[in-house]
Amino acid sequence: MNDPFMRAAIEEARQGLAEGGIPIGSVIVYRGEIIGRGHNRRVQKGSAILHGEMDALENAGRRTADVYRESTLYTTLSPCPMCSGTILLYGIPRVIIGENQTFMGEEELLRSRGVGIEVLQDPECLELMRRFIAEQPHLWNEDIGV
Amino acid sequence: MNDPFMRAAIEEARQGLAEGGIPIGSVIVYRGEIIGRGHNRRVQKGSAILHGEMDALENAGRRTADVYRESTLYTTLSPCPMCSGTILLYGIPRVIIGENQTFMGEEELLRSRGVGIEVLQDPECLELMRRFIAEQPHLWNEDIGV
Repeated sequence: MNDPFMRAAIEEARQGLAEGGIPIGSVIVYRGEIIGRGHNRRVQKGSAILHGEMDALENAGRRTADVYRESTLYTTLSPCPMCSGTILLYGIPRVIIGENQTFMGEEELLRSRGVGIEVLQDPECLELMRRFIAEQPHLWNEDIGV
Repeated sequence: MNDPFMRAAIEEARQGLAEGGIPIGSVIVYRGEIIGRGHNRRVQKGSAILHGEMDALENAGRRTADVYRESTLYTTLSPCPMCSGTILLYGIPRVIIGENQTFMGEEELLRSRGVGIEVLQDPECLELMRRFIAEQPHLWNEDIGV
């Protein structure tokens, strides 16, 4: 992966994995700079809401609507309903997704509300999730409410 | 408000207001008991994601799908896209809403996905939000991404 922002999201995912967590990472980019980065913290913080995208948004801090509306969210995995709803809440206009083969989120809903979506099907993102799901299916199911 | 669970959500909202925050509260009820309660913490924690419903879910801790699927979420205000997406992620089947006159969330989306919704139009919930929005319109706009 050469894109520096998806590269950063993957690094976040790998950091999560190294911490014993779920390997999903995300960064938020505003005017060419990362203003928030994060990874899934279900295991690390006992959190039900800190998916990678949520952690990145939380780490970006309180922002006004004009910032979100010029931002792009990068995430290693297709965003679930919670993260997609958050994208809609803040009017983030563009989402770059590492892969959607191991999990298909609410891409259709996002598109129907005018969010621009690009799916990279990146082999590294795919491999991270395939291995994780195979090794820890119960933890994965907990994270997606299954 | 006589319903003890909406009463608890309103108490959470009032606590948030007393802390200088946004007066929205929520509780999650499983088999007749509150397993998580919370209120909006944007101001208190500098948080972009801790709406009342999210705070209640976070305070309920990590739960498996079978718990969420027997739970009811009470919230003093119609749930925004983020909180509605979270309701969908976890398959919470029933949402009781204090009021939807000061803000209409994603009730239609929730209904279209099979979530049962009841709106109480409670005068106390309405008064809390009407006063808050009149007094702090910029803070309110930040919270709903406007």
